Amino acid sequence: MYSGGYAGKILRINLTNKTAKEEKLPLEIAKDYIGGAGLGIKYLFDEVKPGTDPLGPDNKLIFAPGPFTGTSLPCASRMAVVGKSPLTGAVGMALTGGYFPAELKFAGWDAIIVDGKADKPTWISIKDSTVRFHDAAGIWGTMTFDCQQMIKDNLNDQNTRVICIGPAGERLSKIACIINERRAAGRKGLGAVMGSKNLKAIAVKGTGTVPIASEEKYKTARSEMLKAFKESPVLYSAFSPAGTPMVVDLTGALGILSAKNWSATGEFVPVEQLGLDAQNSRKIGKEHCYDCPVGCSQMKLAKTGPYAGILTEGPEFETIYSFGTETGVANLDAVIAADRLADELGLDSMSAGVTIGFAMELFEKGILTPADTNGLELKFGNDQAMITLLRMMAFREGIGDILADGTKAAAKKIGKGSEKYAMHIKGLELPAYDVRGAKAHGLNYATSYTGADHNRGYAFQEIFGIPVPWEVDRLAIEGKGKLTKWNQDVRAVTCDCATMCAFILDTALPATSTQNTAALMDAVAGLTFTPEEVQKVGERLNNLAKAFNIREGFTRADDTFPERLMTEPLKDGGSKGQLISKEDLKKMLDEYYADRGWDTETGVPTRAKLIDLGLGYVADLLKV
Amino acid sequence: MYSGGYAGKILRINLTNKTAKEEKLPLEIAKDYIGGAGLGIKYLFDEVKPGTDPLGPDNKLIFAPGPFTGTSLPCASRMAVVGKSPLTGAVGMALTGGYFPAELKFAGWDAIIVDGKADKPTWISIKDSTVRFHDAAGIWGTMTFDCQQMIKDNLNDQNTRVICIGPAGERLSKIACIINERRAAGRKGLGAVMGSKNLKAIAVKGTGTVPIASEEKYKTARSEMLKAFKESPVLYSAFSPAGTPMVVDLTGALGILSAKNWSATGEFVPVEQLGLDAQNSRKIGKEHCYDCPVGCSQMKLAKTGPYAGILTEGPEFETIYSFGTETGVANLDAVIAADRLADELGLDSMSAGVTIGFAMELFEKGILTPADTNGLELKFGNDQAMITLLRMMAFREGIGDILADGTKAAAKKIGKGSEKYAMHIKGLELPAYDVRGAKAHGLNYATSYTGADHNRGYAFQEIFGIPVPWEVDRLAIEGKGKLTKWNQDVRAVTCDCATMCAFILDTALPATSTQNTAALMDAVAGLTFTPEEVQKVGERLNNLAKAFNIREGFTRADDTFPERLMTEPLKDGGSKGQLISKEDLKKMLDEYYADRGWDTETGVPTRAKLIDLGLGYVADLLKV
Repeated sequence: MYSGGYAGKILRINLTNKTAKEEKLPLEIAKDYIGGAGLGIKYLFDEVKPGTDPLGPDNKLIFAPGPFTGTSLPCASRMAVVGKSPLTGAVGMALTGGYFPAELKFAGWDAIIVDGKADKPTWISIKDSTVRFHDAAGIWGTMTFDCQQMIKDNLNDQNTRVICIGPAGERLSKIACIINERRAAGRKGLGAVMGSKNLKAIAVKGTGTVPIASEEKYKTARSEMLKAFKESPVLYSAFSPAGTPMVVDLTGALGILSAKNWSATGEFVPVEQLGLDAQNSRKIGKEHCYDCPVGCSQMKLAKTGPYAGILTEGPEFETIYSFGTETGVANLDAVIAADRLADELGLDSMSAGVTIGFAMELFEKGILTPADTNGLELKFGNDQAMITLLRMMAFREGIGDILADGTKAAAKKIGKGSEKYAMHIKGLELPAYDVRGAKAHGLNYATSYTGADHNRGYAFQEIFGIPVPWEVDRLAIEGKGKLTKWNQDVRAVTCDCATMCAFILDTALPATSTQNTAALMDAVAGLTFTPEEVQKVGERLNNLAKAFNIREGFTRADDTFPERLMTEPLKDGGSKGQLISKEDLKKMLDEYYADRGWDTETGVPTRAKLIDLGLGYVADLLKV
Repeated sequence: MYSGGYAGKILRINLTNKTAKEEKLPLEIAKDYIGGAGLGIKYLFDEVKPGTDPLGPDNKLIFAPGPFTGTSLPCASRMAVVGKSPLTGAVGMALTGGYFPAELKFAGWDAIIVDGKADKPTWISIKDSTVRFHDAAGIWGTMTFDCQQMIKDNLNDQNTRVICIGPAGERLSKIACIINERRAAGRKGLGAVMGSKNLKAIAVKGTGTVPIASEEKYKTARSEMLKAFKESPVLYSAFSPAGTPMVVDLTGALGILSAKNWSATGEFVPVEQLGLDAQNSRKIGKEHCYDCPVGCSQMKLAKTGPYAGILTEGPEFETIYSFGTETGVANLDAVIAADRLADELGLDSMSAGVTIGFAMELFEKGILTPADTNGLELKFGNDQAMITLLRMMAFREGIGDILADGTKAAAKKIGKGSEKYAMHIKGLELPAYDVRGAKAHGLNYATSYTGADHNRGYAFQEIFGIPVPWEVDRLAIEGKGKLTKWNQDVRAVTCDCATMCAFILDTALPATSTQNTAALMDAVAGLTFTPEEVQKVGERLNNLAKAFNIREGFTRADDTFPERLMTEPLKDGGSKGQLISKEDLKKMLDEYYADRGWDTETGVPTRAKLIDLGLGYVADLLKV
C-alpha cells in the first residue's frame, strides 16, 4: 500500500491504561496532509473535542515526522509536535529537528499519538515495535540534558534518542517546551501538555530504514535539491557559517528588531554587542541535524563574568531578541547563558524572554515593585535578574509562578493595566520582527492558527528582498493578504507537513519548493502530486487548523495586535514613524480573508472553500 | 607471551610531534607491578627526571587500567592516572572508574603514556589501534560534560568514551582534575598536567575483548569473589543503597568529621542536614561503573532555592565534607550544586572545598577582607559565596586566581600568617577524617607518597571496627606504624595496581584481598603469585614512589601535619580532647619507618629493603 516514505503505521499510546497499539495510517491522510503537522492536526481536529482542557487527560500529543524524514534527503529530519495549546487554547504545533525525528522513522513509525494521563511520572522507551513504560521517579525533576543522559544510561544504549521535558514542563508552565538533544519543540506550551500527562520523556531507537519508492527518481530529485543548495546565493556562503544570527544585523538596519518589550524598537539596537560579529566571537563550532549538509546551528561559548564556560547551541536570532534586545540585555554572554538555561529548564526561550521583558516594563512603570519580585531589580538590561527570574519561572517560585504561564495569563493575574504591555497574540508571545516595519509579518502574526508565530508564514520577501512570488514593499499594506496566504500555504506544506527545514525553503527553494515537494513525494512515497496540489495541502491544513480554532471559540477579534503596535509609531531607526493602525489591520484582514475564500466579515472559512479542499465534514461540524 | 589480562601493548603519544606509537609492555613490569598505578609509577620513576617541571613538556601523564579491567570481573573498571603532581611536586596519582577504563582495554591498550606539549589545543581519538590528533578549538573552554558530548557528536559515535579537562585544567589550576563521564581522577592537579600539554581530551573506542588465561580458574575466582560480596555484612545491605555518604553519620558520631577548616570538628556536626537521611531525601537513582553489581554512586537532585534541579552523581562523603562541613555549609542542595559545578569546571571537589574553607577562615580572621574578595562575604556557611568562588577559581578571576592552586600556594601568596590555616600535607589538602581522633589515618596522611591522601592506606579498622588484620584502637598511637604499612601495601596492590574498587576491599574483601588478587592473576593473566608476593607488589610500589619523592627533595620533615592538628585538641564530640602531638607523630613515624625497613632517622628506604624488593637500581640512584 505504501511504497516508500511511510511505514503506514501510527503508534497509539494511552498513558492512563499504559497501552501501546499499532494502527494503520490511512493512505488518504498521507495524500491529503502528507505528514508532520498535517497529520498531527488532522488527528487533533478529529479526536480532540471542543472545549477539551489542554492540560487534561483528553488532550492528545502527537509526534509526527514527515515522509522524507530518515531518508538520505538533506534537511528533512524534522518532526511536528501537535496538541491543543495550553498557552493559546488554539492549535498547538511546534517543530523540532536533530536526530530524534529520523530515529522515530527508523523505528518504523509515521507518528506517535499520546493520550490519557499516567498515574505517576512515567517515561516510555520505543525500540522498533517494542514499547515499554518506565517509572520516571529516577529522572523526575531533572534538567533536560541530564534527563537524556540518564535515560541513555538506564537503557545502556548511548545511541538512543530522547525527547523530554524539564522542570518547567513538570510544573505545567504554559510556556514549557519539549527538548530533544539541544533542540526544542519550543512554542505553545506543549511541554506542559507532556507534563500534564505525567510523561517525562520518550526514548526511541530504530534499526530499520525508510524505503524509497523509486530510487531512480529519488536520485534525480535529491540531486536537483542539492543543486539548488549549491546555487543558492546565501545558503553555503552566508547562512551555513552564520545561522539565524545573521538576521540580527539585517533587522537592526531595517529598524524592526524589537526591543525592550517593543517600547524601544529602532532606538535600542545593540548590533555591536549582539550582532553577527559579536556572535562569531563566541562561536566555537557547528552542529548538524541528521543528514544535513548545512549545519546552521552555531555552538557558542560564553566568555565573561559569571557566564564564562557556558555553552549553547544557538542562540538563534529569536533568542538573541527574546533574552537580548527584548529585555534590554546587550550582553551576549548573558544571552548565551539564558539560552542554555531555558533549554535545560525546558522553557520556550522566546516566550520566556518576552515574558521577562514584559515583567521588566511593569517594574520600570511601577506596576510591579520590589515587594512583588522578592527584591529582584527587574530593570531592562539587568542580566542577572533575567537569569534568576528564568529559573524562578521554571520552578514557579515567587513572581516566577505568575510569569510561568506567559504574558497573557500573567497580565490577568497582575491586573493594574498590565495587559497593555503583554506582547502576545492569542496568548502566544510575539517573535522578534517588529511588524510596524514589516506589514506582512504583522498580518501573518495576526492570522497564524498558532498565534503570533513567524514560522507559520514567514515573509522572507520583506527581510531579504527576495522577489518570490513577487516583489514586495515591506511597508505597504496592500497586497499583503495575498502574500500572506501564499507564504502560509507554501510553508505549511513544505515545512510543516513535508517537514523540510524552513531555512532551506527561505534560502535555497523559495520559488521551487512545491515542485521540489511534488517530485520528492513521487520519488520517495510513490504518490503523485502536481505543485498546485502540493500547495493545496498547505491550504487544506491552514483551513483545518483555522476550523479547530473557530470550534474553540476564536473569532475575527482574535486576529489582532497588542494595542501598542497600532498606536505607538516607531520612534527611531530604519522604520521610524511606522505603525499598523487599526484601519491598516482591518484592510489587511479583509484582503486576506477574501484571498482565502473565507467570509470577510467573520474570517470563517466558507462551505465552498472547505468543500473545494475536501473538508466537507468540517463545514458540517462548523455549521457553515 | 601474555596469556590474558594484558594486551602487552602500551600506547606512546608525543604531543610535541603528534606521534603515536605502539610499544611492548615488558612482562617484568606486569610481574613486578601488576598494572594501574604500579605500571604508571614505574614509568614515571624511570622516565621523568628529577626536577622536571610538572607543568612542562617533559612531565608525563600515564593512563593505566589494570589486568582485570574490561573483563567481566565486577568492580575492576578502574584506571590510574599518573604524573608528577604540580600541586605537591611528588608522585601524582589518582584513580577513576566508570566506563573509560574498560573501553581502553577493549581498544587493546594496557596504558597510554603521553608526553610533550601540543602547539595548540588538541584532542586525541583512539579507535583500537588508530590514533588521531584533532584541533581542539571547537571544544576548548567547554565544561567537562559538554566537552564529552561534543566529542561524541564530532566522532558521530555516542558510544565513544571520553576523558577530559574543564576550564580549570586549561588554566593550569593546580587542583584541576580529569573527568570521564561524571567521575573524576580527582586529586593532585593532574588536570593541570593535561592542560599544560594543551590536551583537552582523549576519546577511546575499542572493539576487542580482554582475553582470560584460564576460563575455568577465572570462573572459580570470580564466583568466590561474588560469594564474598554476598557474604559481606554491609556491601549489598548498606553500602550499595547508601554509598560513601553513610560515613557522614559514622564520622559525625566518632567526632572526626572535620569542620570549618578543621577549627570546629566535633562542634559543627550537621548530620541532620548532610547525613544519610538527608542524602536519601535527594536521591533519585543510582549509577554503576562498567560491570559493577554494586552501583554505589547515588544520583542526587537538589530541590531548593537557586539549586533546584541540579543533578550530581554524588556527592561522595569526601565532598559532603569539603563543600559541606569544611566550609560550614549545612545546606545539602548547595553541596550538590557545588559538586556538580566542580565536576563541570574540572576542579577536584576535595581540594577546592578545603581551599574555600581555608579562605573562609582567613576572611573570618580578617586576613582576607572584602577588598581582597571583590566584596564576596566569605564567611563560613555562605553557600552562595562558595559557589561563586568555585567558579572564580576555575576561571582564575580575582581572589580565585590565588586560590586556584590550592592552600599551600595560596598561603604563600597571601602571607600574613595564613600558612597556619592551610590544611594540607605536602601540598595536598586534607581529606575529611580528622586524624586527631583516628591516629592511623593521621599516620597514613603524613606518609602517603601523594600527600594527605586517605586513599593510599585507608584505615577502615578505625572507622568500621573491622578487626583485620587485627583489632585496633583508633585513639592509640602505638601499633599504627605496622597497621599503616599493612594498609598501604594491601591497598596499593589491590586498588592501585590491580585497580580493584577500594570500596570492595573495605566492605567485602578486607581479609582476603591478596588471596583474591593472587587467584585472579593466575586465572586472568596466567601469572602465578602467592598472596605474600601480591602484598610485596604493594610494598614495592610504596618504596618506588617514596624513592621518587626523595629524589625530588622530600625529607622526613615533609611527613608531618598542619600545626593545628598537633596543638589544638578537639573541643567537643566523640573525640573531645584528642590531638596528635609532635611527640605522638614522632613515635608513629619512628615505628612506621622501622616497620617499613627504612632508615628510622631519615625515613629513606634502606639499600637492603630496596634490594629485597628487586629495586637495586633505585638504591643506586638514591645512593643509599
